[in-house]
Amino acid sequence: MAKALLTPRAVDFPRWYQDVVAKAELAENGPARGSMVIRPTGYALWERIQRELDDRIKAAGAANAYFPLLIPESYLRREAEHVEGFSPELAVVTIGGGKLLEEPLVIRPTSETVIGESMARWIESYRDLPLLLNQWSNVVRWELRTRLFLRTSEFLWQEGHTAHVSEADARDYARRILHDVYEDVLVNVLGMPVVVGRKTVRERFAGATSTYTLEAMMGDGKALQMGTSHELGQNFARAFGIDYLAASGQRELVWTTSWGITTRLIGGIVMAHGDDLGLRVPPRLAPVQVEVLVVRPGDGVAEVAHKLTTALLGAGVRATLNERVDVPFGRRAIDAELKGYPVRIEIGPRDIAENRVVMVRRVTGEKIAVPIDGVVSLVTAALEADQKTLYEQALTRQRQRTADVTSVPEAIEAASAGWARLPWSEVGSEGEAELNAQGVTVRCLVRADGGVPDSEDEPDLVAVVGRAY
Amino acid sequence: MAKALLTPRAVDFPRWYQDVVAKAELAENGPARGSMVIRPTGYALWERIQRELDDRIKAAGAANAYFPLLIPESYLRREAEHVEGFSPELAVVTIGGGKLLEEPLVIRPTSETVIGESMARWIESYRDLPLLLNQWSNVVRWELRTRLFLRTSEFLWQEGHTAHVSEADARDYARRILHDVYEDVLVNVLGMPVVVGRKTVRERFAGATSTYTLEAMMGDGKALQMGTSHELGQNFARAFGIDYLAASGQRELVWTTSWGITTRLIGGIVMAHGDDLGLRVPPRLAPVQVEVLVVRPGDGVAEVAHKLTTALLGAGVRATLNERVDVPFGRRAIDAELKGYPVRIEIGPRDIAENRVVMVRRVTGEKIAVPIDGVVSLVTAALEADQKTLYEQALTRQRQRTADVTSVPEAIEAASAGWARLPWSEVGSEGEAELNAQGVTVRCLVRADGGVPDSEDEPDLVAVVGRAY
Repeated sequence: MAKALLTPRAVDFPRWYQDVVAKAELAENGPARGSMVIRPTGYALWERIQRELDDRIKAAGAANAYFPLLIPESYLRREAEHVEGFSPELAVVTIGGGKLLEEPLVIRPTSETVIGESMARWIESYRDLPLLLNQWSNVVRWELRTRLFLRTSEFLWQEGHTAHVSEADARDYARRILHDVYEDVLVNVLGMPVVVGRKTVRERFAGATSTYTLEAMMGDGKALQMGTSHELGQNFARAFGIDYLAASGQRELVWTTSWGITTRLIGGIVMAHGDDLGLRVPPRLAPVQVEVLVVRPGDGVAEVAHKLTTALLGAGVRATLNERVDVPFGRRAIDAELKGYPVRIEIGPRDIAENRVVMVRRVTGEKIAVPIDGVVSLVTAALEADQKTLYEQALTRQRQRTADVTSVPEAIEAASAGWARLPWSEVGSEGEAELNAQGVTVRCLVRADGGVPDSEDEPDLVAVVGRAY
Repeated sequence: MAKALLTPRAVDFPRWYQDVVAKAELAENGPARGSMVIRPTGYALWERIQRELDDRIKAAGAANAYFPLLIPESYLRREAEHVEGFSPELAVVTIGGGKLLEEPLVIRPTSETVIGESMARWIESYRDLPLLLNQWSNVVRWELRTRLFLRTSEFLWQEGHTAHVSEADARDYARRILHDVYEDVLVNVLGMPVVVGRKTVRERFAGATSTYTLEAMMGDGKALQMGTSHELGQNFARAFGIDYLAASGQRELVWTTSWGITTRLIGGIVMAHGDDLGLRVPPRLAPVQVEVLVVRPGDGVAEVAHKLTTALLGAGVRATLNERVDVPFGRRAIDAELKGYPVRIEIGPRDIAENRVVMVRRVTGEKIAVPIDGVVSLVTAALEADQKTLYEQALTRQRQRTADVTSVPEAIEAASAGWARLPWSEVGSEGEAELNAQGVTVRCLVRADGGVPDSEDEPDLVAVVGRAY
């Protein structure tokens, strides 16, 4: 029944994606070109992602702050690569309070510059280092070809910015965020296997000396960059005069990092876990883990529904009760499937008579009658098992659709179905240009043992290549 | 010692405010005119305010969503009073992606219009009502004369927007937010007594039919509007075509509300509770309730400091440990006072020898030696008592500095020191103009029994007037 609602993935994956985003009420286009309205169902996912990231960011010692939306245009020009990277994407405010501004203001495409200027004022001596800041905010990068969550002119993100006494300390921190914050949330909460590696010079962030990335494979075999962490060397420190009095008595420039994860993650969840019935939300992330659905009113139905919901909440399960019997049951059940609630408990008069309810698991599709007394423990076990299953299904796909090859033409061939792994020495900047000409990119470089390289010049590196969103 | 750091309030209150905001590291000016950088100490206050508000907003049934930053200019023009109210304050984007835009985009000064447009699409029948939305976001209203937190071109806020089947339902909800969310947080968490009332026609929000407000008295006797909740009647419903299929089979326009609280609250906390030593943060709000300070290293000091911090955290107290002995103890103690941590525990080698620590309470100034075993229970009791004390001090000031008068000239006189209460029948729109000419405004109208009026035409209303931020 629900199948008719969505274009099947096998028929048209991009259209399936649009259908899910619309029918699961995650988001829609806003009135201005490239803008997005994130609806409550989509925003609840973002709030859960925020909470999981924020807890870990704070555990890593960074404090949240807030920097201005509008940045003088001249700030961006101070770092040469940075301005070159962002100029084509800027939204510019030229009128304020009814008057033409003397200096136009750009809406932040990212906040390295304005934060760099603050850091220069806040940092006096080595005692003030490391300075570990994070910001939750909106940014604007003008886009003509937009796709909800994946590519929009305005998006929401967190951007971390830190300053350190040494290159080694900056590198350690950029990697700590990469692994302890981003990889941990992606793997253990979002249930998404990721390849963690280093971007090539061509792919790295404008102004960075190293960009680390986490790449996940979507349902169609394409890659989605899930998050990045950058070492900025002393580029911004030099441009904004961020220096400190070292223990030696000398003034030294700091070493900075930045790192971010955006609302595109929501698109990643849809494309990594969704199926032809809609979204499947990993239980550990799910804002609604269990929906208790009253099928039809009847003797004792409301009572049992309330009691079960309370028992689930008491057991720490994020449960909600749906008693909207003025909406047909079938429509509500389909809505729960589209929105990907991990478990639904259906309760009608006949169930009460038999002292049972029906438990439906979104990930496995299993639908079984369970005795009322056993619901809480069965639900808890199902949530745990289905979290694992989602991860394993995604991992299996990633493995099956990653080909080990030895040449650029083979990699291009393999990229039509998924990813390719090949020696970076076979690619190089010339091979990278060849790949790019075919719409294929080097997603990242990894060591043979899966580790993250310190430089693209290390021997025996593996390039992971594919098409990407 | 700390006194030298700040201009005393009695000497120059606005300057004292600026000093506290700067020295407590709450915020500073950003590079673009009217912009603000909220530093970690200030932002931590905002995060706590957000959490307290958000929990109650969700308990009131509203769901968070996110709407675009940039709004086509034409949207604002659809509601006549609204565009008139906001036109002088708009920041306008005219260039995007390097090209002049066909239609300029304004940075949202508030989101009634863009949310109205979404509501019109989302609401089909009475089953979709009430639609209860909230958004946490930044907004821009161009300001030339700015003051950190109180008046800045960009600020952070939450804005709620709801649609209802009837005027009565909309009114109930606008009032529910006013009392159960805003008043509850202000009084019980922020420790701020407020007068809750109705704005006059002259003072109400552009496009509203009723504006309710919560007004608090600052340390200098001036008023600060802490939050507002509006009934918008059917003005936006008509402008954006937000209608629904009623149970009767007719199409009807909805009734909408909107309500918001902003980062100016942080300025309110400073000015309501601060003293000549700096900020005093109400314990229930405080991100840091207790700072455990190692005075000097020594036998057993670090061990006891860690043990106590852990014990406090275990008891649900928000405690942090400060072991930065490379910074002089006096400087750290002054910093704790400036930032207004409710309690500080000082531990040095001599204390350990005597099996005690020193507890300093920020609100009362009390400094006593307490046995190590008794710290947790004494701290808990102090936090509770000092929350009450802050509220009572603010309430006493408000009572002492509010004069009951009977004429407009008397009210103007009284407003030099605080607020005045007088019969609204003695003011009227002519008296209101007289007040305004002297820089005094009607903060709100209340019933004789303190209740919130349904209209300004009710008999026996009391006008609360004063100077305001």
